[in-house]
Amino acid sequence: MPKISNKGQQMPESPIRKLVPYAEIAKKKGVKVYHLNIGQPDIKTPEVALQAVKNAAIEVLEYSHSAGFESYRTKLAASYRSYGLPVETQDIIITTGGSEALLFAIGSTMDAGDEIIIPEPFYANYNGFATASGVKVVPVISTLEEGFALPPIAAFEQLITPKTKAILICNPGNPTGYLYSQEEIQQLAAIVKKHDLFLIADEVYREFIYDADVQHHSVLNVPGIEENAIMIDSVSKRYSMCGARIGCLVSKNKDVMATAMKFAQARLSPPTYAQIASEAALDTPQSYFEDVIAEYKGRRDLLVEGLQNIPGVKVAVPKGAFYCIAQLPVTNADEFAQWLLESYDFHGETVMVAPAAGFYSTPGVGLNEVRIAYVLKKEDLQRAIAILEAALKTYNAR
Amino acid sequence: MPKISNKGQQMPESPIRKLVPYAEIAKKKGVKVYHLNIGQPDIKTPEVALQAVKNAAIEVLEYSHSAGFESYRTKLAASYRSYGLPVETQDIIITTGGSEALLFAIGSTMDAGDEIIIPEPFYANYNGFATASGVKVVPVISTLEEGFALPPIAAFEQLITPKTKAILICNPGNPTGYLYSQEEIQQLAAIVKKHDLFLIADEVYREFIYDADVQHHSVLNVPGIEENAIMIDSVSKRYSMCGARIGCLVSKNKDVMATAMKFAQARLSPPTYAQIASEAALDTPQSYFEDVIAEYKGRRDLLVEGLQNIPGVKVAVPKGAFYCIAQLPVTNADEFAQWLLESYDFHGETVMVAPAAGFYSTPGVGLNEVRIAYVLKKEDLQRAIAILEAALKTYNAR
Repeated sequence: MPKISNKGQQMPESPIRKLVPYAEIAKKKGVKVYHLNIGQPDIKTPEVALQAVKNAAIEVLEYSHSAGFESYRTKLAASYRSYGLPVETQDIIITTGGSEALLFAIGSTMDAGDEIIIPEPFYANYNGFATASGVKVVPVISTLEEGFALPPIAAFEQLITPKTKAILICNPGNPTGYLYSQEEIQQLAAIVKKHDLFLIADEVYREFIYDADVQHHSVLNVPGIEENAIMIDSVSKRYSMCGARIGCLVSKNKDVMATAMKFAQARLSPPTYAQIASEAALDTPQSYFEDVIAEYKGRRDLLVEGLQNIPGVKVAVPKGAFYCIAQLPVTNADEFAQWLLESYDFHGETVMVAPAAGFYSTPGVGLNEVRIAYVLKKEDLQRAIAILEAALKTYNAR
Repeated sequence: MPKISNKGQQMPESPIRKLVPYAEIAKKKGVKVYHLNIGQPDIKTPEVALQAVKNAAIEVLEYSHSAGFESYRTKLAASYRSYGLPVETQDIIITTGGSEALLFAIGSTMDAGDEIIIPEPFYANYNGFATASGVKVVPVISTLEEGFALPPIAAFEQLITPKTKAILICNPGNPTGYLYSQEEIQQLAAIVKKHDLFLIADEVYREFIYDADVQHHSVLNVPGIEENAIMIDSVSKRYSMCGARIGCLVSKNKDVMATAMKFAQARLSPPTYAQIASEAALDTPQSYFEDVIAEYKGRRDLLVEGLQNIPGVKVAVPKGAFYCIAQLPVTNADEFAQWLLESYDFHGETVMVAPAAGFYSTPGVGLNEVRIAYVLKKEDLQRAIAILEAALKTYNAR
């Protein structure tokens, strides 16, 4: 029998999705499961995007340009410029989700054996994309105690080797909700400039910021690192269009764009229907975002307060995105998460959380942490917190 | 300035798409371009697929399961069984185009430095996917003179090394239109069984077969190689839905499926709208396919006869798909193809062809060949052939 690849064996299972079979069993038993485990918002997709697809006069569902519709890229560039990012049509390649943008960015800048520094905990699939490309993730640890702030520059510099090709950040962060300050972005810019590295920023949660005294700082807006900066974006969260699978890669570095274009050509084109929806979504009224941000802010406040009131639970207040990392009074959050689905219910209901260990690449770190996505409406979130509190009591009394 | 990767430098440009800028210039000059260069059919997408999207009651455009809608996989499996392929729901992972299915197949079975044997000429993007995965393509040459028949088994066996992990075929073939006989498939099966290799078959053109005396033989239908066989499929050509970007990976090998699933989870899910269209497309009436096949058969016959009547042009009659490789009376088909767009027009019209060298990985082979896709309606095809004939005369009289 032929054998699968070493790479395939090393590919991590998704920590977000690996508990799915247990959730399915719970549901089959009639237990209601509150999903705090996945970043699938319940927010409605903008009507303008849905209608554009309904009204599209398609006779032949054709390939698009490998870089995506030119009309979409032009309109998207204008949209970036409208909030101050210096982006032109030719700086954009439309991709199949932010996922593919990251894959193209890694493929264009890194060879097998190269290293990428990522502050951890980080979005679990970064491990998957790095493994798929044979690239080594070098984590720099940020901690719940420090609110997941950027570790000191010295911590980065001591990790840089001749194999280091890039630093990757997620800003605001999944899974931490951390938002980098302007000073932190400038510190990162100084490092990549000094050591000739790429600075790849996953900015898909850019709008999801909840406090008046902070704002988002894009890597595209730092003078002097135009050749180093690569921005990853996506429509998934912005318009609650996760299923569209449309993202983009943005860079001023022409070599990067020409190289990423070759990867884009190999896979022909991004999905056509989803591009129609995404282009139309650019006309979403501002009131939509105001409502969405207000809603998430309310959920965040409710969640953080609820979690802080559970004995033994610690949480860093997320400034953006819609996740937080919570430390639980358990030794192994993985076992606890499985137990919640397999063996527990509170009046016929339970919760599903994502064990945080999968968001760290350092073994043994984050074992008592979970990632919680606040993508449920407030009543459900409140109910889920109550279940979690009751479950922890039962679990620790076993 | 940070440098792009070696891999990125090695990524081939698409031979199908690299002439696009010249075509754009021609069009801006007002010259009409007949596109014989790309497999974008002009055939209408089935109404049932388009309507399903129009009628979809979506409020939140959500992620789907990473393996694709379960309802779609179940219905697709039943459809495979209806024409004799032993496929169950769990043998299928829905992918973003056949492209992604191939990427998952390579990633799951091969590491950087491993080798894959492919009869050439082959679909140019196989080079791209292999390069992206650090895998070495080992070509075994099939020739126009032999009608692109499978080279003798001995030719395969002498290429097998400890690094060889798989044989990849496209059946019916893009760019040759070659259809493997049952005997050839059995010979391949015997090799992969003997040497413990995977047999990956790109069968996206399965229905496009034009002669009553031949039929398609799938690698999924060969007893004894259930653990070796991986089938790549796509809705792109079958339903003229290239822009959907939906394909699938099919295998009975549970290790392959579990591994491919990890790659699938990393990119979250295939596009939702396109899955709705693809699931509905399974209800396309049989008459649609009969009409389409009759149309393509007419086009093939017209094209082959037309090409054979041009002095100095040689062509192998394609048995399936909608491409053929034609040898032209020129030294460098790449230059000729560019000249057609840049410097030529016949009463304000010209043709765009794909230079075939990009479909070979052996340097220097196929330099005087082009791939012609017969995806235009007969009048246009006839006109395109006439232009090609006139152009060759002018080109060679320069």
